[in-house]
Amino acid sequence: MAAGMETSATVRHDPLPMKHPFDEAITLTAAGEGGWLGHTHQAYWNRVGPFGGITAAVMLQSLLQDGRRLGEPLSLTVNYPAAVAQGPFTIRTTLVRSGRSTQHWSAVLVQDEAVMISVIAVFAVRRPVWGHAEARMPDVPAPQAVPPVNPRAGAEWPRRYDMRTIRGQLGQDNPDSLTQWWINDNPPRALDYPALAAICDAFFPRMYLHRATFVPTATVSLNIYFHTNAAALQEQGEAPVLGCAQGQVFDDGFADQVGQIWSSRGQLLATTHQIMWYRE
Amino acid sequence: MAAGMETSATVRHDPLPMKHPFDEAITLTAAGEGGWLGHTHQAYWNRVGPFGGITAAVMLQSLLQDGRRLGEPLSLTVNYPAAVAQGPFTIRTTLVRSGRSTQHWSAVLVQDEAVMISVIAVFAVRRPVWGHAEARMPDVPAPQAVPPVNPRAGAEWPRRYDMRTIRGQLGQDNPDSLTQWWINDNPPRALDYPALAAICDAFFPRMYLHRATFVPTATVSLNIYFHTNAAALQEQGEAPVLGCAQGQVFDDGFADQVGQIWSSRGQLLATTHQIMWYRE
Repeated sequence: MAAGMETSATVRHDPLPMKHPFDEAITLTAAGEGGWLGHTHQAYWNRVGPFGGITAAVMLQSLLQDGRRLGEPLSLTVNYPAAVAQGPFTIRTTLVRSGRSTQHWSAVLVQDEAVMISVIAVFAVRRPVWGHAEARMPDVPAPQAVPPVNPRAGAEWPRRYDMRTIRGQLGQDNPDSLTQWWINDNPPRALDYPALAAICDAFFPRMYLHRATFVPTATVSLNIYFHTNAAALQEQGEAPVLGCAQGQVFDDGFADQVGQIWSSRGQLLATTHQIMWYRE
Repeated sequence: MAAGMETSATVRHDPLPMKHPFDEAITLTAAGEGGWLGHTHQAYWNRVGPFGGITAAVMLQSLLQDGRRLGEPLSLTVNYPAAVAQGPFTIRTTLVRSGRSTQHWSAVLVQDEAVMISVIAVFAVRRPVWGHAEARMPDVPAPQAVPPVNPRAGAEWPRRYDMRTIRGQLGQDNPDSLTQWWINDNPPRALDYPALAAICDAFFPRMYLHRATFVPTATVSLNIYFHTNAAALQEQGEAPVLGCAQGQVFDDGFADQVGQIWSSRGQLLATTHQIMWYRE
């Protein structure tokens, strides 16, 4: 239960359990079928709106909480038409179609009748059939062997992560835009699908590995495929995950990013693509 | 004008210009704002529905033809809830939000009131600003030095492409699932955004590079980022493009694919991700 939601008149003597800021930020109140009320959270604020990852997480959370939902997240595409304003918002979830092994959803985040966020997603029932892991986790030092970097000033949300960069640090002379880092919620929190979605968007814009100059950027569209299940997430627990991200092209004011998120035991948990807008 | 659409009683002596089957397949008739009527095309039929690439193309075409559209395609996500049935369909396009440099859309393809295809997309006004091409086209032989492969029997749509595989041929002993091929419409057709979208989905399922056994597969979600503009497309003309695709993980009945489409002059035209369902 979130602090401030205590409505009982009884005096409570137990210390209130500390709620993780991530859980506070993705808290939604049901408002009829397919209706969800939420509020932006200062702990995940970026410069002119919420951290895009926390928005992806709360959109996914609305679908996870929907009583019509079957299976686990498979695919999530989050489009960002406008910066979400500080304050309350409504999410509307729509079950597009439900099949035997997959379920298709759409969702929008609305403020003052305007759509700020637009999502389509797929949930799936995973089956233990033939499998093959083709991509391999890069050979990297253990998290405890890599010093954490101080988050940049100017935005609050990076303080919610423990980021240990192995390769592709900001402000260094980088041969390319590849970053490899161990990343974890700060304080640590057991990994779940919303947290994994947020981590997919936590990489700093790839262009800053080529250019020292700060220019405004914003994620236009974020795409995530989940390759894990509840058992693997439980096994991961509160340990850091390895994130790898690289840009392929920066052109005409738009740049892409491809990424992978690996469990500490070398399982590919998620693959992600995004396209960003940048000025100048 | 399509053959069969001639309604005039006058006798026409000029030979009718041959319409490319791709143009026939993406032909839409306007039916009010945001309404479009189309029909599946046998030339692009797959086993139990249309080739997913032609569906992506016709969805994109509906947005390109919408009078409210500004700019060029930037991002396209196509989710495939159900196999489109042979016959007519309706597409409904919705302008979610229009900004200064980007425009957000959603669209659905409907048959008998059921949503068969669900799309979100972004259009953008590209600006000639700082850019950097990080990914490099692989060093491959020229298209004319690579023999075309015969399309597999059993599906019609592969016959609509000239496919010249450099690496990662079906039915060979492949070290991984990487395919590189020159691909072109057959007969050749000047490249545009719908054709590029279709080509992003033309790679055979990556699992067949590991397994000789045929099992049913289907694209669940396809994501494309366009990194080109009208001038670059015009420069490409009717020449083949280089397609590269690889799977990272095949697990629990779902497999991903990452891909790149390169112009014949080495420009990255599109990057693409998809996730597929497979049985067994």
